[in-house]
Amino acid sequence: MATSRTTIATFRTRLAAAWAQNDSLLCVGLDPDPARFPGAWRDRADRIFDFCRDIVDATAAEACAFKPQIAYFAARRAEDQLESLIAHIRARHPALPVILDAKRGDIGATAEQYAREAFERYRADAVTVNPYMGLDSITPYLAWHDRGVIVLCRTSNAGGSDLQSLVVEGGERLYQRVARLVAGPWNTSGQCALVVGATFPQELAEVRRIVGDEMPILVPGIGAQGGGIEASVRAGRTRDGTGMVLNSSRAILYASDRDDFAGAARRVARETREAINRALRAPR
Amino acid sequence: MATSRTTIATFRTRLAAAWAQNDSLLCVGLDPDPARFPGAWRDRADRIFDFCRDIVDATAAEACAFKPQIAYFAARRAEDQLESLIAHIRARHPALPVILDAKRGDIGATAEQYAREAFERYRADAVTVNPYMGLDSITPYLAWHDRGVIVLCRTSNAGGSDLQSLVVEGGERLYQRVARLVAGPWNTSGQCALVVGATFPQELAEVRRIVGDEMPILVPGIGAQGGGIEASVRAGRTRDGTGMVLNSSRAILYASDRDDFAGAARRVARETREAINRALRAPR
Repeated sequence: MATSRTTIATFRTRLAAAWAQNDSLLCVGLDPDPARFPGAWRDRADRIFDFCRDIVDATAAEACAFKPQIAYFAARRAEDQLESLIAHIRARHPALPVILDAKRGDIGATAEQYAREAFERYRADAVTVNPYMGLDSITPYLAWHDRGVIVLCRTSNAGGSDLQSLVVEGGERLYQRVARLVAGPWNTSGQCALVVGATFPQELAEVRRIVGDEMPILVPGIGAQGGGIEASVRAGRTRDGTGMVLNSSRAILYASDRDDFAGAARRVARETREAINRALRAPR
Repeated sequence: MATSRTTIATFRTRLAAAWAQNDSLLCVGLDPDPARFPGAWRDRADRIFDFCRDIVDATAAEACAFKPQIAYFAARRAEDQLESLIAHIRARHPALPVILDAKRGDIGATAEQYAREAFERYRADAVTVNPYMGLDSITPYLAWHDRGVIVLCRTSNAGGSDLQSLVVEGGERLYQRVARLVAGPWNTSGQCALVVGATFPQELAEVRRIVGDEMPILVPGIGAQGGGIEASVRAGRTRDGTGMVLNSSRAILYASDRDDFAGAARRVARETREAINRALRAPR
């Protein structure tokens, strides 16, 4: 018998499998705000898990990933509910990667602790990080070879331009330099991806040009933040019609504030996935 | 009777009072790593509070502030111990501000959650934040008028230069632009401070020149990270011989790995405070 090589399922390969399985580039963002919970759960921080579980189960067939935003859990002393939620996703929807949106940024021994938080404690498949402190703020995460590291590049908020749009030595803008670094010298092991907001499609296209087709791009801001799906898809897609993780949070989570919230979330998720797919299949 | 105006004790005024009370610019960083705990506490994550409490009580008379690094608590599922630790500092050492080192960076509703985590849940006096996402990633913290927001400017790690040293349009470096923004348009309420590492004294001096004497500068990297006290003090001090929060973590926490660790920590803290004061009082 031939010796079989052990194949590690990386974040990149798990994501590609999820894109294919569910015919979806939609990521459902989990930003649970008890003030917006439906019916009897309104204002109940002890219902964060229940609310998110119902959203997850209702939308899993429409999604390629889930993205819990850790701030919403940390503000409510709900880390245990975040652990339970990710365990639930892994048990019930094992094909769908979990991206922990934490935007961590620190160095050395401290970054090792944050990596341990994301990958060991929460068992996330990927974590978002901030590039301001440079390569050695990224390296500790790369020691977890089967996980992804998604680096902030261009963010969709107004203040995103304060630093990211500055022209730096060599003539490119700071976000372009970040894209070039992350796609080049920082991406020693193929574990990296980028965050690029949906509000600037021409910049998304520029980032795709810089990083090529191998690197996934997480695009927040579809839906509630107003980013146009068609323009984003056109700008960020790869030649094979994938390469993107298009995140929508509030438009799905709070599609209804009544007891039908899970069904409403499913409908909005499906419509969003279909809108993405229409844009993917439109003539370029 | 005259109507008395309510005076809010801001982070800035609390810090100035602590500088004066303890004749100290030393901040004791709390980066608890159970693998380095003394004696019977070695490897016991349930002793994080006990270890930090003993360090705090032993060093409080030598310090102007404490800076817990949240990653060490989060990696060990020890948020409750962090809450207890900060409550202990506030109860037993009420004159000493607590800086939560979290380096958060996010926008809008998410930044509001992080502010709530730092200021409501943990009751920190100040929090460290990352500037990459721009002004609207800072604004939500400023709604807490009595708290401080300490923005990363120039970090002491090797990779800190990857982005921070880039020359940007106008001819200054990125960290200089951050200093100028934080001291100017971002500092609408006098709540901001900066983080500038100890390994580049000439850059620390440059930042002090940009921001003037009103803005505190948190300087990590005294001690274990090898930053020279004398050069840093000369570069970063204000005219009145204050203005800095000089942080040392590991050199104090792990001064001894035996049962005398608290006494050893006190000695190192005292020596560090005295070295800082000698540098402050040396002829300029």
